Amino acid sequence: MKNILVINSGSSSLKFQLIQMPEEHVLAFGLVERIGQESGKLSYSSEKFSTSEERQVSNHSEALKSVTMLLMDSKNGVIKNASEIPAIGHRVVHGGDKFSETILIDEKVKTTIKTLFSLAPLHNPPNLTGIEVAESIFPNSRQIAVFDTAFHRSIPPRANRYAIPNSFYEEHNIQVYGFHGTSHKYVSEKAMEHIVDKKSKIISIHLGNGCSITAIEDGKSIDHSLGFAPVNGLIMGTRSGDIDQSVIFYMINQLGYTAQEVSDLLHHKSGMLGLTGYSDLRDIEAEAEKGNRNCKLALEMNAYRIKKYIGAYSAAMNGLDAIIFTAGIGENSNTIRALVCRDMEFLGIELDENENAIRSKEIRKISTNASKVNVLVIPTNEELEIAKQVFSLTSTSTSSV
Amino acid sequence: MKNILVINSGSSSLKFQLIQMPEEHVLAFGLVERIGQESGKLSYSSEKFSTSEERQVSNHSEALKSVTMLLMDSKNGVIKNASEIPAIGHRVVHGGDKFSETILIDEKVKTTIKTLFSLAPLHNPPNLTGIEVAESIFPNSRQIAVFDTAFHRSIPPRANRYAIPNSFYEEHNIQVYGFHGTSHKYVSEKAMEHIVDKKSKIISIHLGNGCSITAIEDGKSIDHSLGFAPVNGLIMGTRSGDIDQSVIFYMINQLGYTAQEVSDLLHHKSGMLGLTGYSDLRDIEAEAEKGNRNCKLALEMNAYRIKKYIGAYSAAMNGLDAIIFTAGIGENSNTIRALVCRDMEFLGIELDENENAIRSKEIRKISTNASKVNVLVIPTNEELEIAKQVFSLTSTSTSSV
Repeated sequence: MKNILVINSGSSSLKFQLIQMPEEHVLAFGLVERIGQESGKLSYSSEKFSTSEERQVSNHSEALKSVTMLLMDSKNGVIKNASEIPAIGHRVVHGGDKFSETILIDEKVKTTIKTLFSLAPLHNPPNLTGIEVAESIFPNSRQIAVFDTAFHRSIPPRANRYAIPNSFYEEHNIQVYGFHGTSHKYVSEKAMEHIVDKKSKIISIHLGNGCSITAIEDGKSIDHSLGFAPVNGLIMGTRSGDIDQSVIFYMINQLGYTAQEVSDLLHHKSGMLGLTGYSDLRDIEAEAEKGNRNCKLALEMNAYRIKKYIGAYSAAMNGLDAIIFTAGIGENSNTIRALVCRDMEFLGIELDENENAIRSKEIRKISTNASKVNVLVIPTNEELEIAKQVFSLTSTSTSSV
Repeated sequence: MKNILVINSGSSSLKFQLIQMPEEHVLAFGLVERIGQESGKLSYSSEKFSTSEERQVSNHSEALKSVTMLLMDSKNGVIKNASEIPAIGHRVVHGGDKFSETILIDEKVKTTIKTLFSLAPLHNPPNLTGIEVAESIFPNSRQIAVFDTAFHRSIPPRANRYAIPNSFYEEHNIQVYGFHGTSHKYVSEKAMEHIVDKKSKIISIHLGNGCSITAIEDGKSIDHSLGFAPVNGLIMGTRSGDIDQSVIFYMINQLGYTAQEVSDLLHHKSGMLGLTGYSDLRDIEAEAEKGNRNCKLALEMNAYRIKKYIGAYSAAMNGLDAIIFTAGIGENSNTIRALVCRDMEFLGIELDENENAIRSKEIRKISTNASKVNVLVIPTNEELEIAKQVFSLTSTSTSSV
C-alpha cells in the first residue's frame, strides 16, 4: 500500500490528487489557481474535510506548501508526515522523442525536459517548476514523470512523419508527437479489461477542452489526430483542428495578418467558438435546438470530422472492434455521440439510442447487441492513470533504485 | 457534327486539342511552350502531319495564331477556315463560388473570372488571357468556360467549411473549392457508364503532378481532399499535402523562416521530393526496389495517406462501391495501387495482383471477382471532358443564345 501524490502543474495553477494504491482510493484532491496573481484561490477536498478560500499565492512553492499543510493537518489531514508519500507523479506534457515511458526523475531527465521547452513553451516550463518544487518540499520522495506524448511513441514512421524535407525531421525533430496519451491509454486499457480482448482494434475519442482521436491496435497507439503541437485534427472549443495551409498563407499575404495573429486566431478564436460565437458545447446544443443555423452546422461539422477519422483509422487498422467516447464532451454529450454514429452501419456501428441517452459516471456500452463494433463510453481519469504508472514503476524497481 | 477547340492557357504555355464531336475524334493537338521567353517551342500533331520546332513566341496571341495557321494550313491542315470551329472550350482553374457549371463567356463572366484572380494568382490570369486571345482570333466562335472547381460546388457545408470565424467565409469566401473537377467528373461518369450504376458510392483518386481524391455519391462530389488552394490532402510530387499548421508557425517563429519561404517550401520542395530527393515516382520506385529506405518510406506514407482518405470517405458515404485510379501515376503505377489496396479487406477491397500488373490504356477492373468494391483504372481525359461539356452546352442552347 502506497500513497501517490499526483501533480499537474500549469503556468498559474497546480492541480493535485493523493491516491492510495493499489486500492485506487482518492484520499484528497484539489487545485490552487491564479498563482502569482493578486488574488489566488485554493480548493481542497477529502472525505472528511473540504475548503475553498481566496488567498494570494505568490509562487508554485508556496502553493504546494499550502497543499502539504492541509494534507498533514493534525485535525483534518489525511496523512501524518511526508514519509507517507513515497512517490510523486508529475504530468509532463511533452516528452519529445526522448521519452517513451514513465521515468524516475534525475538531473538528466530534468535537463532533457528543459531541452523540450521550445516544443511546448506553455506547458513544459511550469511542469518542470512543479517537479523542482516537489523535490524541495518532499526530498525523500521519488519523483516520477509521466508524459502525455509517451503512449504515442509507438506510432510508426508512415504515420508520424510529415511530407516535408527530411532535414526538418533529422535536425529539428519535426514529427507527430501526439497528446492526451495518458487518457487514451487509460480508457483503452479499461475497454480491454472489461469488454474487448487485448488484440482489439480500438478507436478512442477524447472530447474535452482539447479533442483528439487515436487508433489503437494490440494496446498500442498507431495513429493519432494531434501532431507536432495540440492544434490540428478534430474541431475543438476554440481551436480549428485540421485546416488547409493555403488559408494561413492567404490570411498573411492577402488579408494582411501577421503569422502570430493567424496562429492566435487558429488557437483561440476558431473551432466551435469561431463558428458559433459560443465555446461551451452545452450552449451550442441548446442554441441548435432552438434553430440557430450556425450552431447546427458547427455540430454537424464537428461530428463529420470525427466520422471521417473513424473511417480513416478503420482503414489504417483494416478493421474496427470498438470505439470509445471519453472526457467532458465525450462522456456527457449524447448529441455529439449520436451525430457521430449515425449512418455508420457500413463500418459496423449501430448505436442504441436508449443506452446513449442515459447519463452515468460508469463504463457503459451504448451500441446495440447487433452492432459489430462496440460503442463505449468510458470516463477518463488521467490522475489515476498517472498514479497507476507511478505505483507500477516504483513497485517493480524498488530494489534497483 | 461540330469541331470543338479546347484551350488550356498557362502563364507561359498554351495547350490545345481540336476534337470532332460527338464522335470524340481528335483532329489535332499540341502545345506551345515558353511563351514570352527567349526561345519557345511549338509542337503540333494531327493524323497526317506532325511538327515540333524551336521558335520565339512573344505572347499568347502569337501562340494561338501559329496554332491556327497550322490547323488551317492548305496542305497539312485539318480544317479550311475559322467557321469550322463554332465553339472553343477554355479550361479555367478557379470558378470560386460563382460558377457551378460550364458557361458561355460574356463580359460579365470575364469580369467575375478577374475578381477571382487573388484565389488563383498563377492560373486565372493566363486562363483569361487565353479567352481574350481566342475571342480576337475567332470572333464568330462561341467561347465557353469550363471550371476545375465546378464539379465540387455540390460539396455540402459540413465538408466545405473550415472551423475558423464565420467572417472569413462570409467576407472573404474562404472555403473548400476543390480542383481537378473535370478529371474526377470524367472518370466517375465513365465508371457509371461501364461498370457501376448511377447511385453508386465512388471514390476517385487522381494521381498526377497534382494529386487529389473525391467522394462521389449519385454522381455528385460530396467531399474532396484539395481545399481552398491545390496544396493539401494527398502527398504530391513536390507539395506536402496535409500538414499540421503548428509546423508552419514553428518554422516561422523558431527556425526563422518567412511565411513566403515556408509557403514555397511546402509547394516546391516538399512531398515526394522532400522525402526522397526525387520528384518522379518512377525514380522513387526504382530506388525503393534497390533498398533506398527514404524511398520505401515515402511510398508507404503516400499510400497510407490515400488509404486513410478512402476510409474517411467510406464513412462519409456510409458505403463504397468503387474506387478509381486515374492520371499519370494512378494509371501507370501498379506499385502505388497495390500499396493502397493492401490490407483493405475490411472495406471490401480485394485487388487482383495479375490484373493490376497489366499495363494498358483501356478502362479496366483490377479487383478480384469476390471483391465487394470494384477497383478500376480509368484513363482521364480532361480535354475530352471539356469538349463534351462544350458540345452539350452549345447543342442544347443553340436557339437561346
